[in-house]
Amino acid sequence: MSAGAGFPLGRLARMLEATLTAEPERVVTGVAPLDRAGPDDLGYVAGRRHLDAARASRAGAFIAPADLAGLAAPVLACRDPRRALATVLALFHPRVEAVAGRDPSACVADGARVDPTASIGALAVIEAGASIGPRARVGPLGYVGAGVALGEDTVLGPHVVIYSGCELGARVTVHAGAVIGCDGFGFIPGRGGPLKIPQVGRVIVEDDVEIGANTTIDRATLGDTVIGRGTKLDNLVHIGHNVEVGRRCLMAAQVGISGSCRIGDDVMLGGQVGIADHVEIGERALLAGGTSVARDVPAGQRSAGEWARPAGLAHRIWVAEGQLPDLLRTVKRLERRVAELEAEKARR
Amino acid sequence: MSAGAGFPLGRLARMLEATLTAEPERVVTGVAPLDRAGPDDLGYVAGRRHLDAARASRAGAFIAPADLAGLAAPVLACRDPRRALATVLALFHPRVEAVAGRDPSACVADGARVDPTASIGALAVIEAGASIGPRARVGPLGYVGAGVALGEDTVLGPHVVIYSGCELGARVTVHAGAVIGCDGFGFIPGRGGPLKIPQVGRVIVEDDVEIGANTTIDRATLGDTVIGRGTKLDNLVHIGHNVEVGRRCLMAAQVGISGSCRIGDDVMLGGQVGIADHVEIGERALLAGGTSVARDVPAGQRSAGEWARPAGLAHRIWVAEGQLPDLLRTVKRLERRVAELEAEKARR
Amino acid sequence: MSAGAGFPLGRLARMLEATLTAEPERVVTGVAPLDRAGPDDLGYVAGRRHLDAARASRAGAFIAPADLAGLAAPVLACRDPRRALATVLALFHPRVEAVAGRDPSACVADGARVDPTASIGALAVIEAGASIGPRARVGPLGYVGAGVALGEDTVLGPHVVIYSGCELGARVTVHAGAVIGCDGFGFIPGRGGPLKIPQVGRVIVEDDVEIGANTTIDRATLGDTVIGRGTKLDNLVHIGHNVEVGRRCLMAAQVGISGSCRIGDDVMLGGQVGIADHVEIGERALLAGGTSVARDVPAGQRSAGEWARPAGLAHRIWVAEGQLPDLLRTVKRLERRVAELEAEKARR
Repeated sequence: MSAGAGFPLGRLARMLEATLTAEPERVVTGVAPLDRAGPDDLGYVAGRRHLDAARASRAGAFIAPADLAGLAAPVLACRDPRRALATVLALFHPRVEAVAGRDPSACVADGARVDPTASIGALAVIEAGASIGPRARVGPLGYVGAGVALGEDTVLGPHVVIYSGCELGARVTVHAGAVIGCDGFGFIPGRGGPLKIPQVGRVIVEDDVEIGANTTIDRATLGDTVIGRGTKLDNLVHIGHNVEVGRRCLMAAQVGISGSCRIGDDVMLGGQVGIADHVEIGERALLAGGTSVARDVPAGQRSAGEWARPAGLAHRIWVAEGQLPDLLRTVKRLERRVAELEAEKARR
Repeated sequence: MSAGAGFPLGRLARMLEATLTAEPERVVTGVAPLDRAGPDDLGYVAGRRHLDAARASRAGAFIAPADLAGLAAPVLACRDPRRALATVLALFHPRVEAVAGRDPSACVADGARVDPTASIGALAVIEAGASIGPRARVGPLGYVGAGVALGEDTVLGPHVVIYSGCELGARVTVHAGAVIGCDGFGFIPGRGGPLKIPQVGRVIVEDDVEIGANTTIDRATLGDTVIGRGTKLDNLVHIGHNVEVGRRCLMAAQVGISGSCRIGDDVMLGGQVGIADHVEIGERALLAGGTSVARDVPAGQRSAGEWARPAGLAHRIWVAEGQLPDLLRTVKRLERRVAELEAEKARR
Repeated sequence: MSAGAGFPLGRLARMLEATLTAEPERVVTGVAPLDRAGPDDLGYVAGRRHLDAARASRAGAFIAPADLAGLAAPVLACRDPRRALATVLALFHPRVEAVAGRDPSACVADGARVDPTASIGALAVIEAGASIGPRARVGPLGYVGAGVALGEDTVLGPHVVIYSGCELGARVTVHAGAVIGCDGFGFIPGRGGPLKIPQVGRVIVEDDVEIGANTTIDRATLGDTVIGRGTKLDNLVHIGHNVEVGRRCLMAAQVGISGSCRIGDDVMLGGQVGIADHVEIGERALLAGGTSVARDVPAGQRSAGEWARPAGLAHRIWVAEGQLPDLLRTVKRLERRVAELEAEKARR
């Protein structure tokens, strides 16, 4: 797991604002899983649940929470070990700079503008009028449609498809197989079969967005489908036409958002969440995995369950449901008992 | 949003069978979102919910429902504005005819029959025995397997995969990344691990079908998986082996249909609907988004919720569930009260 | 449906350990659906539900359960007809051997090791340091990243993406559009927007695994995401980072497994099952389609429904829920009746 260059623990401690328990001169060259780490590796201890594994580990040092004691090797004690892990991983695995230029096997249309510092992968197709910004990369076998704009440092993985006219900002990452700008699902049912509403809008992906593998984002019927700055989508997510997603949202895998929804800033959606069309999700709302939503969700609310209720209520209902078969029997018995009391009263 | 050619309002009124409130000679050149439309654009007003935006719009004219008054610019008053929108969008954005012929970078097998009016995109692969009909298009980086037949005017987006032996009719549209004809999921559990049942059937896609991005349709074990004429599938839909989908169905994104299901004509499935294997959905049935179905659904029924119930009942149950924690407490109290009455009776 | 070579029924009976009712010399050349089979075809009768179709069939012979009588043509009576079907399909449709070698249009990096018996499809891209084993196949338009290892007889369909450093064992099958080794979804929410945790681990796919079309498997943050030997994943499945899937599991389409889950051996997951992160599913557990799981599931348990309960209980609750609106009314009535009895008691 090491990537060559080494860092002394003392220097890492300063970078991470961590307290180092010993051996500031000791050099580590990478991060490794606890059960595989050797004396040159950092081990990562998220919390107590990793303590046994950490004690058995041969790691040369640990990133660990500040309150965790009893490890055999030096510890970089951190307030937020996960954030520290992110920092050291970025340190040991710096972004590999792509070779600027076009692979000779790529098909780049005459009318495309490709920045000389950009990189076009093997067998990629770039259509006329596309514009590829500084240090942007189009992966092998990727497709960039007519008039598409990619901002600086934006990276498309292999097999990504960007349909014509869509715009991606700076530092956007798109993973393999994602499709941006396909037609929205707009049909009018009718006797002769569904009538297609032409989809002539675009998709706008703002800066610093990340889009997972095989995710699909539909172009708007008119106007724009928008993914706000800093938002991250996992794999196999679907975003319908004319959806407006706010900034810094996180959506886990297989989330589906129907047409014309508005998702506020900082919303978090668990895996497989489904949202019906024209629904508005307020900022900072959090929907647990598997929740399906057909009505607006207020800002800041945590929701869960079928047709999204406040999460606490959803959980109480779920627990209560477990008693429902018994409850039915209890109520039947109660009816009989009350009937007997009533009969007795009538006899008096 | 304009596409060049302009149309006078009077002519549009005749085409749309709409009532025009003023200025039949005024020319518009496109359709634009209300907040971006200028004096050359049509604005689209779906109903009252768009009224404020329409009043603030600089659009030169509006498509609007017949009963909507009080707009500053001429109105094309329509019985069905959404249908009118579809018509004008098709008018202002006519299908761009592809250039006939094979991109020189495409790999077309010697034994493939490609109609001279068909278009084969850059870096597409066409295997032997495939047959590409008049004016059909294979998108860039597409794959058309051995013996596949594409009907006239059928359009495959970039990165589409059609496995060997499948047949697509006329005017079929397949969006990027869709996979048609992959193996059905047929395994027999056993001690030595799951045993694969070879999948040797085909997929038949009838005329006028549309298939969304990254959707997958499995070939049959034996015989055919069928998608009926005029049916439209959204993105990331899964259709299992030997499924027979009827005509004019609409399936929203992330629907999953297990093997050997039969879906009747004109069925509508909301997003993320899941249907267990061998289930039959009667014609014109409508399943709300997120519904999971393990039993047959009768023709015409609207269903919703976990294990699909009639939608009205599903909604009443959902409301009742909200009272369930209170109900448990009420029944416990009732038990105590009845026990007291019984005790009193025993004392008498 | 026939593939040329014919087999006499007597020989098939010996291979299938089936009892043949007549005509051991009769030769059949394929298997066909009951309604299309001709006198040279075998028809497949899974059970009683196929009996009418079998009686109307022109098939020359049948594979059928041992207790099924009354068919007009000879019957290969089998204890497990589905297993017999798998055997004869494999017999009539033997694996087509690919032509060894590299398609001249493929882009194979100098530093890649490709076994001379392996087959590299048209327009595939193989990066440096990749190793392609004996008789392995990379499909047309496939992408094999730097340092990837493919074992012997492993087959990648068209458009498959394997990111750098991942390892696939022997006899693995990956269907079109699947993406293996994309980044895990690791972000730390924070004021400046989500902070990405670099994903530097790998995906290990063990021998005899099958992976469906457009399925995505994330690489580990550190260490490995593992798919155990003999496991089969259907289409559009998502496997998160650091997940460890056991051996011989079956996962139907659109299953989603969040990061760091452990799935035991022989687990079966129905379509659209969703599992929250860090959950452990015990071996031989079975989750019905559509189940969402947020807690550990013990070994051998059959579970169903929202937040996974034992399947029997889930079904009883579902039935009870149907009576819930009535129950609410009954309890309201009971409260009034008890109040009356109490009032009467107070009057005494």
